[in-house]
Amino acid sequence: MFELSFDLAPFAVKARLFLIPTPIASDTVLQTLPASVLEVVPTIRFFLVENIRTARRFLASLKQNIPIDDLTFVEIGKHSDPTVVLTQYKSWVEAGTTIGLMSEAGCPAIADPGNVWVQWAHQWGAEVLPLVGPSSLMLALMGSGLHGQCFAFHGYLPIDTQARVQKLKWLEKQSAALHQTQLFIETPFRNQTLWKDLLQHCHKNTWLSIAANLTAPDQLISTYRIGQWHQKNFAPPKVPCVFLLMS
Amino acid sequence: MFELSFDLAPFAVKARLFLIPTPIASDTVLQTLPASVLEVVPTIRFFLVENIRTARRFLASLKQNIPIDDLTFVEIGKHSDPTVVLTQYKSWVEAGTTIGLMSEAGCPAIADPGNVWVQWAHQWGAEVLPLVGPSSLMLALMGSGLHGQCFAFHGYLPIDTQARVQKLKWLEKQSAALHQTQLFIETPFRNQTLWKDLLQHCHKNTWLSIAANLTAPDQLISTYRIGQWHQKNFAPPKVPCVFLLMS
Repeated sequence: MFELSFDLAPFAVKARLFLIPTPIASDTVLQTLPASVLEVVPTIRFFLVENIRTARRFLASLKQNIPIDDLTFVEIGKHSDPTVVLTQYKSWVEAGTTIGLMSEAGCPAIADPGNVWVQWAHQWGAEVLPLVGPSSLMLALMGSGLHGQCFAFHGYLPIDTQARVQKLKWLEKQSAALHQTQLFIETPFRNQTLWKDLLQHCHKNTWLSIAANLTAPDQLISTYRIGQWHQKNFAPPKVPCVFLLMS
Repeated sequence: MFELSFDLAPFAVKARLFLIPTPIASDTVLQTLPASVLEVVPTIRFFLVENIRTARRFLASLKQNIPIDDLTFVEIGKHSDPTVVLTQYKSWVEAGTTIGLMSEAGCPAIADPGNVWVQWAHQWGAEVLPLVGPSSLMLALMGSGLHGQCFAFHGYLPIDTQARVQKLKWLEKQSAALHQTQLFIETPFRNQTLWKDLLQHCHKNTWLSIAANLTAPDQLISTYRIGQWHQKNFAPPKVPCVFLLMS
């Protein structure tokens, strides 16, 4: 989080930052985004985006005759210089602009570092307006059948085997102690390694749920105890997955 | 969680359980639900619902000419007998029925006990299909600007003052130790008591965010450090709020 003194002079016109969800599976714009997204997005001319090419493709897919070549995009991805982004972003806020924030897929500022830019909006006194859209974490939690009144999301687990196994054991303990469903994700090509670790190192009574390729035609959501999974000949597909554990 | 032996004979036709989100603010059906909900729901005749009156009102609000009087509803709210619900529900699954699960507001099985019924669907081998819709938790997290790569939801905090203050201090510690945003909710008439406790007992550098009446025209999302909140003359409105804390 950048540090900034709190009381800035209020700007003449209050800027607005719309947080725009994008689809999590191909060709699902109209199935997974509500009308408010289709109405609001075509009115926005200035965008903070994780990736310009993805952003343009998304805007075209809305089929709202958005003049894409007239829009201004600033990339906030990992190759961008935060001070350059910030200078541009601040000038937009000062001018009372309506700005859109988008990530590669799903809800911006969740499971990605976009929250920093939302935080700035609050500090500058801009209005922050999140829009409804697909969240793989919420769909996975709903679909898992695991406890939804207390849960935690941890992002990616460590790549190092020993550290990952340690984390899994810690997640199992946390889950039992707090009656908390534990959610985490993995890079698709490592799904099967993670799965082996889960089956090998978690207790046979622990519940394990997998939600793969959510909102796609081949979506798969399945929940069993570790001991039940042992009896199945299952390996997770190399697609985006959410894993959920409850002990 | 009910206990049940795992391997049941597969049913002739695979039943499907759709998890149906409902609006979280009045008159926002068309703004917050995607087309898939409007298409799928009118095809369902059997519903597990938290409250029948709310469910009927929701179905009417879709304006899809649903023959509401021909539908079958089973209430799963706190006054229902779980064994009665289970018997009815199981007979639907055995018959390969398409079933809808709905809670009072938002995503079913999140921040409510509906997950038990999803868990049964998995054990019976039914297909579980969560639909996209508004989640006050995700909208609040996106809108807060607080860390979205590691977060936890805790439901309601204890009613007892001493226990609540203890929990707040624990949340603050957890947040610092795990770099984890802490989310919790409160009954609207207790919002102001909780707010006073937060301002009195949390560290002045801790970030506190409030997201009130999300998706409604008077929605309010604001994030400051506790020390900044002290300088403001703010009391939360007596409406549904999500509170977020990060230290």
